[in-house]
Amino acid sequence: MMRRNLTFVLVVLLAAGPAARGQSPGRDYRKAHERELLAEFAELLAIPNVASDRANIRRNADHIVKMMERRGLAPRLLEAADAATPPAVYGEWKVEGAARTVVLYAHYDGQPTDPKQWAAGLEPWRPTLRTAPLEAGGSTVPMPKAGEAINPEWRLYARSSSDDKAGVMAVLAAVDALKAAGRRPTSNLKIFFEGEEEAGSPHLADILARNRELLRADAWVIFDGPVHQSGRKQVVFGVRGVTGVDITVYGARRPLHSGHYGNWAPNPAMTLARLLASMKDERGRVLVRGFYDDAEPLGEAERRALKEAPQVDEELKAALGFARAEGAGKNLLELLSEPSLNVDGIASAEVGAQARNVIPTTATATIDMRLVKGDDHRRQVARLVEHVRAQGFHVTDKEPTDEERRSHPLLARVTPRGGYNAERTPMDWPLSKLITDAVQSVSPDRVVRLPTLGGSLPLYVLRETLGAPSITVPLANYDNNQHAENENIRLQNLWDAVEIVAAIMTMKE
Amino acid sequence: MMRRNLTFVLVVLLAAGPAARGQSPGRDYRKAHERELLAEFAELLAIPNVASDRANIRRNADHIVKMMERRGLAPRLLEAADAATPPAVYGEWKVEGAARTVVLYAHYDGQPTDPKQWAAGLEPWRPTLRTAPLEAGGSTVPMPKAGEAINPEWRLYARSSSDDKAGVMAVLAAVDALKAAGRRPTSNLKIFFEGEEEAGSPHLADILARNRELLRADAWVIFDGPVHQSGRKQVVFGVRGVTGVDITVYGARRPLHSGHYGNWAPNPAMTLARLLASMKDERGRVLVRGFYDDAEPLGEAERRALKEAPQVDEELKAALGFARAEGAGKNLLELLSEPSLNVDGIASAEVGAQARNVIPTTATATIDMRLVKGDDHRRQVARLVEHVRAQGFHVTDKEPTDEERRSHPLLARVTPRGGYNAERTPMDWPLSKLITDAVQSVSPDRVVRLPTLGGSLPLYVLRETLGAPSITVPLANYDNNQHAENENIRLQNLWDAVEIVAAIMTMKE
Repeated sequence: MMRRNLTFVLVVLLAAGPAARGQSPGRDYRKAHERELLAEFAELLAIPNVASDRANIRRNADHIVKMMERRGLAPRLLEAADAATPPAVYGEWKVEGAARTVVLYAHYDGQPTDPKQWAAGLEPWRPTLRTAPLEAGGSTVPMPKAGEAINPEWRLYARSSSDDKAGVMAVLAAVDALKAAGRRPTSNLKIFFEGEEEAGSPHLADILARNRELLRADAWVIFDGPVHQSGRKQVVFGVRGVTGVDITVYGARRPLHSGHYGNWAPNPAMTLARLLASMKDERGRVLVRGFYDDAEPLGEAERRALKEAPQVDEELKAALGFARAEGAGKNLLELLSEPSLNVDGIASAEVGAQARNVIPTTATATIDMRLVKGDDHRRQVARLVEHVRAQGFHVTDKEPTDEERRSHPLLARVTPRGGYNAERTPMDWPLSKLITDAVQSVSPDRVVRLPTLGGSLPLYVLRETLGAPSITVPLANYDNNQHAENENIRLQNLWDAVEIVAAIMTMKE
Repeated sequence: MMRRNLTFVLVVLLAAGPAARGQSPGRDYRKAHERELLAEFAELLAIPNVASDRANIRRNADHIVKMMERRGLAPRLLEAADAATPPAVYGEWKVEGAARTVVLYAHYDGQPTDPKQWAAGLEPWRPTLRTAPLEAGGSTVPMPKAGEAINPEWRLYARSSSDDKAGVMAVLAAVDALKAAGRRPTSNLKIFFEGEEEAGSPHLADILARNRELLRADAWVIFDGPVHQSGRKQVVFGVRGVTGVDITVYGARRPLHSGHYGNWAPNPAMTLARLLASMKDERGRVLVRGFYDDAEPLGEAERRALKEAPQVDEELKAALGFARAEGAGKNLLELLSEPSLNVDGIASAEVGAQARNVIPTTATATIDMRLVKGDDHRRQVARLVEHVRAQGFHVTDKEPTDEERRSHPLLARVTPRGGYNAERTPMDWPLSKLITDAVQSVSPDRVVRLPTLGGSLPLYVLRETLGAPSITVPLANYDNNQHAENENIRLQNLWDAVEIVAAIMTMKE
């Protein structure tokens, strides 16, 4: 998850001040074992891992169990009540007298993908090394043999090479690194690799609830998502919630000839246009009453972190090809800390070559709304419905009846798309600082700290089910094509990931 | 063409006053020859007749030539410069000393159709008699044998049974009727059956221009389209012109994750909504500057005819399932005499089950505009473009360049869809009256006279190429499913058609 659709190269912004580096036991080990690490990773990546592919997803789980057994992590599968669910793979490294318990999270399933969409020579589950990103040319290189040099700018192409088997591999390689260095973690470590995150984690709450004692911890560290667009590492303290609706408005029961009935029979495409236009002003502020009311204001630490984070708005606009952003002058990072309303798509009859001169019968918009701490997803939907009513619509949740058609000039069917709330861990919580320092300790550039991701993950489940706060530490390069074809990881990001995880495993006050 | 998408049954409105009936030589002949007429018609309907099906469309033309030869109409094919064009079939009945020359027009090609869409037991080119419209139940009946009674409420199902081989058959059967009665037409008759009307008549002007002398006439009578929804016959003196545009507005170059960029990156679906909403007010009046300025006002005769025409607005609204019409209080017939602007469709990314939480890259609307006498289609498009500019958009006719994306916050690509102007023959022209009287002479109910159809036909071509005015006399039942699957004609409408054409052939001052 946590996709960033940026495949361009942003100039790496200069860091405010590089910090001390090299406290992690990860680097020496990794340097000495790059080839083995890559080989073991490629073996894992070769197993197809779409959550709905029951046979193969179990092969992944069993394979990871074996990888953990080799490392003495006492692995086991955590099953949901529904036996068809991809199991979570659990392991642990108990540390006598540790000050705390931390769960290290990654997911081993990947987004579904159409192999035909992958570039020639690439296949989702046949890991392939290339000397450069596809867009930049380069060529295929064979997996390195003993003694061959490995360029850290090479890319390893495969489904989940970034999202999120990179997290799985980094955790296990960091275990190797500690063991090789004869070091123990400073925290009691629990390891939790989910198997259906890309399917929306429908059974995560069930698995957590069935293993409350086993999973008891002070915090979860989520290894998932890409680092900052600038290339700088980041630590993220929250995610937005998400919800949405489908709205369909109605015209006549049948498509009508626009010559014979146009400008007399109501046109639902035009009705929808008017309704959507009422939802936001020209500068992009949402006009739904109360929309911003419940958002908890950011604390002092969060506001400062936002100010310190790199501002890439202008570079992004140029790269994305538009001249003016929404948001009434606020920058991207500020806006990501607010609730949002976005039109995902609109449809009514046909356009272009398929268009006919008709008055359509219906017009539909799908809208998503992002939520921040304080917002409730059901309440935001209720506000949107209230807004539709305030525009004069009769709102229903099914196809309108004849009687409704007769009585109401404006009819809207609103179907909520489900959702969940935001989650945020305070940045000034001691463990927040500790984890940030650990990541910083192995990063040459200043780590970007974000109070929240713009995107959504169901991290609220951790707090609701286990009472556990969570902190997200992304590992992959931002231009990794996750969720799309030609997914890849830059090797340096994989190497850094091992160091980051090892640093977190050994963090000290 | 001239589709009416009404398949419900409207109460037949009471006529203001039935006129004298029975002057046409058509009725006695038809009554005596219903079976033969049906058999000959079924033979014609059995030949597939989509204009792009070159082999079959020629089979139709050749078949019609034979039908005309049997009747001594000296038929010939009129070819376009492009030999692949479906030919028009021409014939004539010269009348020594006739006061005038009239061209009788129909078209023998039909709309493309997917046979799989037809109801079980029906096929587009296998004519089938049923005792009632499909929607009303009924059953299939075999083609009648000699001496068997034929119910005039039966329906004959086949592609073009209404649109517009009914016109071809009615003209030829009316010739039979006159000949059987030993009567001569009162006008010099020329017969012109077009072969690619449903493809938009792309070569009609060419064929007309190549046969200017041959086709010289005082007027064209167009036998096409359905009668009034009330069941009353109608005579129509004009058609609206039509044009249109595709408008695409732009957001970022790539689809963006709505969580990471929503409410910052501009959303083209929302931009399009705002643009469309600016084009019409809430009551449906078009807000494009000058939109109504060029429309020639209706004359006295036309205004009176509109007042006398049946007002079916309330019945239509109930049948079509909506509570409030557009048009700022004007009724349907008044609105059809004005220019109109209609959204044919809108599209941006996906909705419903296919929707993803993205900010779309583009949003497109297809718009059609109907024109009345006085309007020029290029000028109406120019006005719409001007309106888009007035909303702050930079308007282009191709994909925007990087430079355009950089410099203009609002970008719209406008692609005109071609078009043509309206055509209208004055209702107080002597031949207008004469033709109306002829139709009235065989109609029990008062004939509905309409200054213009809401729909469009390229009748301007007749005036521009030949200087010929045209008058349209629809023949088919309004619930004939023309342009759709399960096209049919009610037999009584076919019988009436023979009488109407015969009455026009023998009309006298």
